[in-house]
Amino acid sequence: MYIVIVGLGGIGRNLARQSVEHAHTVVVIDQDEARCSELLEHYDVMAVTGNATDKTVLEEAGIDRADALIATTSDDSVNLMTCWLAKKFRVPNVVAIVNQPSHSDFFKEVGVRISENPDELVAARLYYWTQNPQLQQLASIPGGTIFEIVAEAGAPIVGHEIRELKVKDFVFIAIRRVRGELIIPSGNVKIQPGDIFTVFTKKEAEDDCLRLLNKQLKKSAE
Amino acid sequence: MYIVIVGLGGIGRNLARQSVEHAHTVVVIDQDEARCSELLEHYDVMAVTGNATDKTVLEEAGIDRADALIATTSDDSVNLMTCWLAKKFRVPNVVAIVNQPSHSDFFKEVGVRISENPDELVAARLYYWTQNPQLQQLASIPGGTIFEIVAEAGAPIVGHEIRELKVKDFVFIAIRRVRGELIIPSGNVKIQPGDIFTVFTKKEAEDDCLRLLNKQLKKSAE
Amino acid sequence: MYIVIVGLGGIGRNLARQSVEHAHTVVVIDQDEARCSELLEHYDVMAVTGNATDKTVLEEAGIDRADALIATTSDDSVNLMTCWLAKKFRVPNVVAIVNQPSHSDFFKEVGVRISENPDELVAARLYYWTQNPQLQQLASIPGGTIFEIVAEAGAPIVGHEIRELKVKDFVFIAIRRVRGELIIPSGNVKIQPGDIFTVFTKKEAEDDCLRLLNKQLKKSAE
Amino acid sequence: MYIVIVGLGGIGRNLARQSVEHAHTVVVIDQDEARCSELLEHYDVMAVTGNATDKTVLEEAGIDRADALIATTSDDSVNLMTCWLAKKFRVPNVVAIVNQPSHSDFFKEVGVRISENPDELVAARLYYWTQNPQLQQLASIPGGTIFEIVAEAGAPIVGHEIRELKVKDFVFIAIRRVRGELIIPSGNVKIQPGDIFTVFTKKEAEDDCLRLLNKQLKKSAE
Amino acid sequence: MYIVIVGLGGIGRNLARQSVEHAHTVVVIDQDEARCSELLEHYDVMAVTGNATDKTVLEEAGIDRADALIATTSDDSVNLMTCWLAKKFRVPNVVAIVNQPSHSDFFKEVGVRISENPDELVAARLYYWTQNPQLQQLASIPGGTIFEIVAEAGAPIVGHEIRELKVKDFVFIAIRRVRGELIIPSGNVKIQPGDIFTVFTKKEAEDDCLRLLNKQLKKSAE
Amino acid sequence: MYIVIVGLGGIGRNLARQSVEHAHTVVVIDQDEARCSELLEHYDVMAVTGNATDKTVLEEAGIDRADALIATTSDDSVNLMTCWLAKKFRVPNVVAIVNQPSHSDFFKEVGVRISENPDELVAARLYYWTQNPQLQQLASIPGGTIFEIVAEAGAPIVGHEIRELKVKDFVFIAIRRVRGELIIPSGNVKIQPGDIFTVFTKKEAEDDCLRLLNKQLKKSAE
Amino acid sequence: MYIVIVGLGGIGRNLARQSVEHAHTVVVIDQDEARCSELLEHYDVMAVTGNATDKTVLEEAGIDRADALIATTSDDSVNLMTCWLAKKFRVPNVVAIVNQPSHSDFFKEVGVRISENPDELVAARLYYWTQNPQLQQLASIPGGTIFEIVAEAGAPIVGHEIRELKVKDFVFIAIRRVRGELIIPSGNVKIQPGDIFTVFTKKEAEDDCLRLLNKQLKKSAE
Amino acid sequence: MYIVIVGLGGIGRNLARQSVEHAHTVVVIDQDEARCSELLEHYDVMAVTGNATDKTVLEEAGIDRADALIATTSDDSVNLMTCWLAKKFRVPNVVAIVNQPSHSDFFKEVGVRISENPDELVAARLYYWTQNPQLQQLASIPGGTIFEIVAEAGAPIVGHEIRELKVKDFVFIAIRRVRGELIIPSGNVKIQPGDIFTVFTKKEAEDDCLRLLNKQLKKSAE
Repeated sequence: MYIVIVGLGGIGRNLARQSVEHAHTVVVIDQDEARCSELLEHYDVMAVTGNATDKTVLEEAGIDRADALIATTSDDSVNLMTCWLAKKFRVPNVVAIVNQPSHSDFFKEVGVRISENPDELVAARLYYWTQNPQLQQLASIPGGTIFEIVAEAGAPIVGHEIRELKVKDFVFIAIRRVRGELIIPSGNVKIQPGDIFTVFTKKEAEDDCLRLLNKQLKKSAE
Repeated sequence: MYIVIVGLGGIGRNLARQSVEHAHTVVVIDQDEARCSELLEHYDVMAVTGNATDKTVLEEAGIDRADALIATTSDDSVNLMTCWLAKKFRVPNVVAIVNQPSHSDFFKEVGVRISENPDELVAARLYYWTQNPQLQQLASIPGGTIFEIVAEAGAPIVGHEIRELKVKDFVFIAIRRVRGELIIPSGNVKIQPGDIFTVFTKKEAEDDCLRLLNKQLKKSAE
Repeated sequence: MYIVIVGLGGIGRNLARQSVEHAHTVVVIDQDEARCSELLEHYDVMAVTGNATDKTVLEEAGIDRADALIATTSDDSVNLMTCWLAKKFRVPNVVAIVNQPSHSDFFKEVGVRISENPDELVAARLYYWTQNPQLQQLASIPGGTIFEIVAEAGAPIVGHEIRELKVKDFVFIAIRRVRGELIIPSGNVKIQPGDIFTVFTKKEAEDDCLRLLNKQLKKSAE
Repeated sequence: MYIVIVGLGGIGRNLARQSVEHAHTVVVIDQDEARCSELLEHYDVMAVTGNATDKTVLEEAGIDRADALIATTSDDSVNLMTCWLAKKFRVPNVVAIVNQPSHSDFFKEVGVRISENPDELVAARLYYWTQNPQLQQLASIPGGTIFEIVAEAGAPIVGHEIRELKVKDFVFIAIRRVRGELIIPSGNVKIQPGDIFTVFTKKEAEDDCLRLLNKQLKKSAE
Repeated sequence: MYIVIVGLGGIGRNLARQSVEHAHTVVVIDQDEARCSELLEHYDVMAVTGNATDKTVLEEAGIDRADALIATTSDDSVNLMTCWLAKKFRVPNVVAIVNQPSHSDFFKEVGVRISENPDELVAARLYYWTQNPQLQQLASIPGGTIFEIVAEAGAPIVGHEIRELKVKDFVFIAIRRVRGELIIPSGNVKIQPGDIFTVFTKKEAEDDCLRLLNKQLKKSAE
Repeated sequence: MYIVIVGLGGIGRNLARQSVEHAHTVVVIDQDEARCSELLEHYDVMAVTGNATDKTVLEEAGIDRADALIATTSDDSVNLMTCWLAKKFRVPNVVAIVNQPSHSDFFKEVGVRISENPDELVAARLYYWTQNPQLQQLASIPGGTIFEIVAEAGAPIVGHEIRELKVKDFVFIAIRRVRGELIIPSGNVKIQPGDIFTVFTKKEAEDDCLRLLNKQLKKSAE
Repeated sequence: MYIVIVGLGGIGRNLARQSVEHAHTVVVIDQDEARCSELLEHYDVMAVTGNATDKTVLEEAGIDRADALIATTSDDSVNLMTCWLAKKFRVPNVVAIVNQPSHSDFFKEVGVRISENPDELVAARLYYWTQNPQLQQLASIPGGTIFEIVAEAGAPIVGHEIRELKVKDFVFIAIRRVRGELIIPSGNVKIQPGDIFTVFTKKEAEDDCLRLLNKQLKKSAE
Repeated sequence: MYIVIVGLGGIGRNLARQSVEHAHTVVVIDQDEARCSELLEHYDVMAVTGNATDKTVLEEAGIDRADALIATTSDDSVNLMTCWLAKKFRVPNVVAIVNQPSHSDFFKEVGVRISENPDELVAARLYYWTQNPQLQQLASIPGGTIFEIVAEAGAPIVGHEIRELKVKDFVFIAIRRVRGELIIPSGNVKIQPGDIFTVFTKKEAEDDCLRLLNKQLKKSAE
């Protein structure tokens, strides 16, 4: 796969690394020559120094044979124009970071798939954790949350079957055992100390769910 | 709740906003006075300009009555020392961003809960999307992935019951309807065009799962 | 008229001045506070410091009641997104500078009227002058050029009627007299020394036209 | 022709490109080495890094055999001294940008031909357009304006002869047809939809002229 | 001995020089390439440019075979994390500067030996001197001070045996003669003009000690 | 006492703090206004922003009534000229840091007392420690070293009288007990676990001394 | 007298001080606000921040009532345009520094009196001194030099009349006595030790003159 | 002659050029590598980049075989220490610029010959000229001034002998004729139009002298 990555901030660099590790052909574009040079030292990519909204820069990056272009700069207007150019070049797969929520519509009109503000995503996760120290949020969707919780040794439910938990409006997605085993839980799984539960709950049931889980999976409130 | 936020990069600012929106008392610490001033203009927080590894700066921020401290700077060594100081001040809830995976152990030894590298998280999501344009990854856990996929109008499964899909090693976590309804799916739910499925699959079953879903939920390969 | 001007480079500043001189209500937007302050000292405008691609900045500038928005920054991607936002706000009259010709299509698709690259325009004029020292180009259109030329004292045509010039494929648009009078020339106008001719010529006739005019309006080749 | 271009801002760069395209020998002078290097990468010119008011710099640029020198920096005092030096070196053709109107006289006293402030020129054009959205100004001369206007399909005059328009104090300079044909109009030209008229009007007749043209060439007021 | 020195400020550079002079293998780490280059020009060391809290940087510096690591940066949080990493790599001898006294405990918990704030040390010495111009402080320990004082020609004690001084709560550690001889004094040493006494005194006896020494070793109070 | 401190680097700031704590009148001089302002926020001093080699700056700082001036900048030539000026103003007590050993003579000629290079001092101490992990160097004089060493529980000498150590060419200066007591040791002091010995040894005897002490005061070589 | 000084480098600042000391009305112009502010703190002048080639800046400085304008910037093109503007405003007395000798003619054409390059002037003086350590050059004119030389005690001529020196092609301009008396020498003045001679010599006679003076006024060649 | 020049500001560069033109061996020292490089491109000198107060830098510059060292930096404390070091190296001829008059004594004590503040010198000359537009000051000594004045065609004295001017307390030093001839004037020289007089006058006689010369040498007050 021929992948063009625009912007070499933290996200762009990580993306380059991951793409190289999966053996794709990777071209990066950034205005800062130093950033390009640094990446070239570490990974087997091509790099073009320049502004990706400049058509000749995209052409130099091989846009005409790209399978995907991913715009990751912190400037939405650059991301937008770059993605639009990529669409004109008929790149099949055009993805962008959108830094300001109010700009999302523009990207959609142009036919670009977008990822929400990454900082907001991480902040939400940290905030959730501050409020629920015993949980770790994995993701949220409209109307629900996915999180992880650990069954402590000595907690009431340990040694019992999972069906004994009166589940309402939430789902046990998976259980990870201490030794690394991953189970898609059915009702008769017997809970062991250290089991990590991946749980989905509806927003409206979140409080009940947490109360129940804290009571059953934790030895005592910390 | 009295929350101290260290570092006013993108994550710190978002966190401040979210915390204020939930009516917490928020104090931010950053070395850059301009960043502090800018935040004060927009949100009802307190701000301390200084280095959070300096005990007097933390005291000025009211560390002794803080319920939580969240370190979000891009410098792990600053995050570590700040969190450690917070532990000494017996802050009940101490959370940090860890920018380099190899630093995680230090934070754990000191008793700080940590969040993985945010840039890596977002990059992984974008990469996944590049590879699977019809999906959107929500999260990954060791051994499995959670993603979303839309049932297209005219796809084979539309109008049929969910049980007709031969699910193996993956779970339907939730279905979001076009009108916003969120369903925890049981087998006899009838699939409608536009339904967004939240799905969990084990890593080893991911390929089979995607093949099945693409065949059944998509009208034709794009 | 309520006019919003984005960008306070040379063009933006001149535009602000001209708009104020015609008694319009003018709001300027620029990211550089110093530029805004400087303008406020000299003209009766309002100024908003910020990025015009930020919706709240446009709202602060009163975009909802603007009759026109003119984007003059040197960054096409900023101009594009700003103009697009202005269109969403239903500003009747949205105009932009386009710095790179290859970006023009985007602006047109969004419904923005555009002005060609100003630097290129001026350079063309200077170049023309280098080649034709006795002329001054005013404008060029596809297929033709508009320029000015002075009738020197002692030139053959001075004292004769304009009809005596065998005009083919060019037009005398206007004649400006030394005392300031402006004449739309008919054939029996008698040419006086110092008359400035505004002339239009087709591209293919330009060489003949210049040869004729130089012979008749100039005393001798310089 | 041997052309020396002083200053590599937008105008200077465009001028260099245009001059090279016409196969002239081009030498550029700029104080910023990076700007010079960048140009050398793209065009077949010579470049001298230095201050053009320094005689040895001009000599290095071959001033003694130059046919023309064009000063395009944004600093009038540099332009003035450079041009004056060029005159001493007996360069036949010395042209300059003048950034501040009040400096024009100096250039004229020294015998340099000058071009008006380019930013002001562009701003005037944009301003004109804001006021007359259906027109595009091409140029203005003391006492008159040259602009373009399109005949819309369905407008009253379409299909009629041009003589039917009661022209007073304005001139139809040219008509550009949709297919690209350029006509110097005589009275019996029949107007077609999409015809672009290049028109000259006296300042005092501009309002009447616009009223007439808008009524006859436009289907309805927008 | 294989020594890793982190930070090339004044202390780090001096340390590198001293270590090289004793023929050790020395590797320095600093984030500033210029500082590294400069050192390499003068001394036979190896240099790694990078952040010492980055595990791969330490590995590049040969941390696995280091006998000692000394952290000398002015940023305690960097020193702490670097030293901790060094401990994980089982470096036998890990030493650090601690710039803020309140950070000392962290270093001790991690098992790092620390040196007090160097600036404070020097300032104390200068301050002592301001107060006691005729003395030079060498060191202070809890409860006592070590200083030097010179026996002037013509002072009362000159020519007498040291035992004649009624020493109480202070110790004559050593006497340096003008010709460079160093004596560990016994009571019957005869004092010569120019003898430099190294003296230890308890804090509570310091005033008496100084009074006595000034009276006996100085010709007259200055 | 009226003290003028020149230079607000680490040493200068510490000196200011110490001087204020002893209730002296303190004036600081530094060229950087920010440094001055910062100090004024924390301590009750006066501050003059300016170059101390400028006579009017010194006068503004009250040099004519100063009891002491201490020059602590990292620029020896500034320190030298400042001190010389202070001597001209008959300041009784003029002290300076000398950053380059080869500059010492100038200061002495002018009559300024000097302190050796502070970075070198600290580096020497750290180096000593790297070589002798169980010791801590306190000071060195020409021909000898003063250091501290701890008597470990279970070491051979513990419980015995100090006279049993065959001391040659070194001196026990003081012993600090675990409870804080400070003893000037006589031969019959009985050694307790945790006693910290302050020891002086001649250079030529240092190896023997360390061997003896390590054998007698340490339980086993680490 | 109303004096406008352009440029606040070392020369401009000195000029401002001298002019104020003679009680003139002084206005300074400099582009750097900090320089203006600093001057205002020390002297009773007016200051205008701006570019002196901008007519409105000169007007703000009161150019219409100025008796003199002195341009002292290090940029000849700025000095030239400023002086020319001053001439247009009919300032009676317009003086400028000329930094590059080749620019002098421009200033003269415009009617500005100029001072030679000050750095060259000082350098010439220093160079002269290097070659003739016992002299101090005061000035040089085309064809001759003015310098000072001291009559040493014990030199042959001391006690004799000045006429005894065989003067050829040089002139004794003045003699300054040790007690400060200034004499315009006639032949029978008797020379005293310490007399400082101001001497003029023609270039071609300089060697002879120096030989004579060194022999007669110096005790022995150094 | 082997000359070391310290500091490459305007004075230093001019000095280097003049010294090279007289075929001396020249070494320059400056801390700024760019300045050194630039000089090396133009002149045949050696250059050492570094701080001249650093002994090793001076040694690298060949201070031990230098005939002269000239310190021209704008920092008096650097000039002082450098010159002092040069004296220690027994350089026969050590000269310095002194930027602040109050520092002069230090240089004299160290045995360095000094040149007054060059900016002040030039400013004085410009000021003098502002006050006496028809004169040009060449130099001033305590108690007197040397200046030049031109005899205008048509002035009263033209055609007369110089003796007819009633000279009191001033001296005609030299007369430069239009054709370049330089005369040491005796009384019977006949004055020609355009003669440039070099004149010395005592301070107390300056007004009378100027009045007389203006009356006799000028046609009419300008």
